[in-house]
Amino acid sequence: MSPLITLTTDFGAASPYVAAMKGIILTLNRAVCLVDLGHAIPPQDVRHAGYFLRGAVPYFPTGTIHVVVVDPGVGTERAALCIEIAGQIILAPDNGCWTLLPGAETPRVRRLSEPRYWRQPVSDTFHGRDVFAPAAAHLSLGVPPRQLGPEVTAWQRLHEPAPLHTTVGWDGAVVFVDHFGNLITNIPGERLAAHADSSQVRVRVGEALVTTCVRTYGDAPAGTTVVLVSSDDRVEIAVVGGNAAQQLQAIPGTPVSLRLGDS
Amino acid sequence: MSPLITLTTDFGAASPYVAAMKGIILTLNRAVCLVDLGHAIPPQDVRHAGYFLRGAVPYFPTGTIHVVVVDPGVGTERAALCIEIAGQIILAPDNGCWTLLPGAETPRVRRLSEPRYWRQPVSDTFHGRDVFAPAAAHLSLGVPPRQLGPEVTAWQRLHEPAPLHTTVGWDGAVVFVDHFGNLITNIPGERLAAHADSSQVRVRVGEALVTTCVRTYGDAPAGTTVVLVSSDDRVEIAVVGGNAAQQLQAIPGTPVSLRLGDS
Amino acid sequence: MSPLITLTTDFGAASPYVAAMKGIILTLNRAVCLVDLGHAIPPQDVRHAGYFLRGAVPYFPTGTIHVVVVDPGVGTERAALCIEIAGQIILAPDNGCWTLLPGAETPRVRRLSEPRYWRQPVSDTFHGRDVFAPAAAHLSLGVPPRQLGPEVTAWQRLHEPAPLHTTVGWDGAVVFVDHFGNLITNIPGERLAAHADSSQVRVRVGEALVTTCVRTYGDAPAGTTVVLVSSDDRVEIAVVGGNAAQQLQAIPGTPVSLRLGDS
Repeated sequence: MSPLITLTTDFGAASPYVAAMKGIILTLNRAVCLVDLGHAIPPQDVRHAGYFLRGAVPYFPTGTIHVVVVDPGVGTERAALCIEIAGQIILAPDNGCWTLLPGAETPRVRRLSEPRYWRQPVSDTFHGRDVFAPAAAHLSLGVPPRQLGPEVTAWQRLHEPAPLHTTVGWDGAVVFVDHFGNLITNIPGERLAAHADSSQVRVRVGEALVTTCVRTYGDAPAGTTVVLVSSDDRVEIAVVGGNAAQQLQAIPGTPVSLRLGDS
Repeated sequence: MSPLITLTTDFGAASPYVAAMKGIILTLNRAVCLVDLGHAIPPQDVRHAGYFLRGAVPYFPTGTIHVVVVDPGVGTERAALCIEIAGQIILAPDNGCWTLLPGAETPRVRRLSEPRYWRQPVSDTFHGRDVFAPAAAHLSLGVPPRQLGPEVTAWQRLHEPAPLHTTVGWDGAVVFVDHFGNLITNIPGERLAAHADSSQVRVRVGEALVTTCVRTYGDAPAGTTVVLVSSDDRVEIAVVGGNAAQQLQAIPGTPVSLRLGDS
Repeated sequence: MSPLITLTTDFGAASPYVAAMKGIILTLNRAVCLVDLGHAIPPQDVRHAGYFLRGAVPYFPTGTIHVVVVDPGVGTERAALCIEIAGQIILAPDNGCWTLLPGAETPRVRRLSEPRYWRQPVSDTFHGRDVFAPAAAHLSLGVPPRQLGPEVTAWQRLHEPAPLHTTVGWDGAVVFVDHFGNLITNIPGERLAAHADSSQVRVRVGEALVTTCVRTYGDAPAGTTVVLVSSDDRVEIAVVGGNAAQQLQAIPGTPVSLRLGDS
């Protein structure tokens, strides 16, 4: 079975940087199966990368090696990490991008410190090519993670703001905006799903009030702003056939409150 | 030989949804060869997907499995389909996206009805991950299509408006705008190719009149608006080195008329 | 080992043309390993393609076959070429896109002239599908390059403007703008690296003056315009956490001058 290496970056499709990483990996291990996860992470947006990974990595098989390069701190003292988590491996700069993943509480984390697994010379601005890609290739060839460097016990973390449970409902925020402009929040979807009478749901997104609660997009006419349970079990706000982010002028961080019943 | 599964969606490159589908497929069948066809179908634009598929699917080998998820009706009563057509298999929601393909008159169509080939639980908003990707993986493992569900005899269709043949020429429309802004119409290219005297060709696109008929883009100076036969044998309007859609303000549906000779 | 074919085009992600090429190749050789390098080369921008290739191709293993279709001259008398260079093969229209690669001084170049290795009929507007993709597939099946056509000794070249070494420093230009808006110039990075006192570096980009010289982006606060050595050893101008191209209104061709010390 070919080893599986995935690539996630903010390098975009018009620059040669992703291609360079692919070349480096395939030069070291021609037998690898390369899979693009996405290269349109907004530039240097580690938080977006964190939610992207949470929506993608858990679906991959045991043993997958994920290279994730969103790296505003490239070339500084920030560490390059190898993270073993839930049977998969992530190679990424120490920016916390992996810390929203299931299993992130009990990872094994190493600092890449062995230059023999890097491309030489290592540039100051492109560790994707010179550090992460070759490290991934060596792992795919059977080098055990422990040879890449020593375990560390401290690392950067992304903090997902916890929604606040009040006497009248939940106060949270938009945490991710997808390609359709759908707004994914940090409020657990079960709060909505468990509520028997959807006619009494009221959601505020910034200044907007949403009172149409549906099971899926097609349950309301085009143009309707709706609240529903997202595919990753969060409260989601969408405009049917439209773009909620644009229409409600919402971005990650925009406050969202959920009120159920008469409260 | 690795089974071949292609992916076409409107999910864009910045969201994790395509990546999730890849993970699901590779978890079920590590031996599969995954091929991205395109993930920039305009959101929920089934018609665009239809023309995209017509320009792509016929070139793939027998036995290819195509997963096509442009799905405004996800989670509603719209069926999920497995279509056998011209030796290939398409998995798609019942939105007609495949009905412009050669062979679409004589397909074998089944409704996906066997939850054992799905991911559980099935979300209401992401059947790409929960229904279509696992069904494709099971097909690639050798499950025959008949096990996925019963044959059906009715389905949604895209209707390509037929061009009108009049005494003075052809009246049709733009049906697809490509990345270069080239306008592909529904008028057969042979009408143009068969016309001996290209100096007497007149094409109207909306309000614009085009009289320069060429064999290929490079046959006219940059900036010239030209009419030619497209790579899929349609009448095409292009601006050499420019963007005809922007310059002529044309979109799918914009009327196009072709006049040949003195008529 | 699967033969390796890469694809680079200006076809974008919303059109079916890249997908058609993949189908053609996989129909001829199901055992091939397809790798997308990038399909967002700006339309018909051969120069961008040239710099893209220079940043990507050298990292690929010996024997890789690269199909590169940025082809404003498709269907005209421009030749279709097979270029053997530094152990790899490039298939491209005769537009010079490969001539910035290391080894471009001593290539072996053939003109594709054998229709039996093409798809028939060959359209006038899509040689990616009808000429280059099938030629690549045949090479991957073991057809030697010499069977594709006769050697030629003349071809188009991209000229990278040489920077001017004056008594007071270097005068050059921006040659490539990456996805982050970083400006890559034609001035060798060693000029900067060798200069002991970075506090005396002055760089002009168009009207703007940059005096902050750093080793990597993270060495200056967000928003700072900095000069540094790029990952391909050129003088580079960047805005930390921002977009230098937008902020300095610079494009390929914008003059850049480098002054070191008191000069």
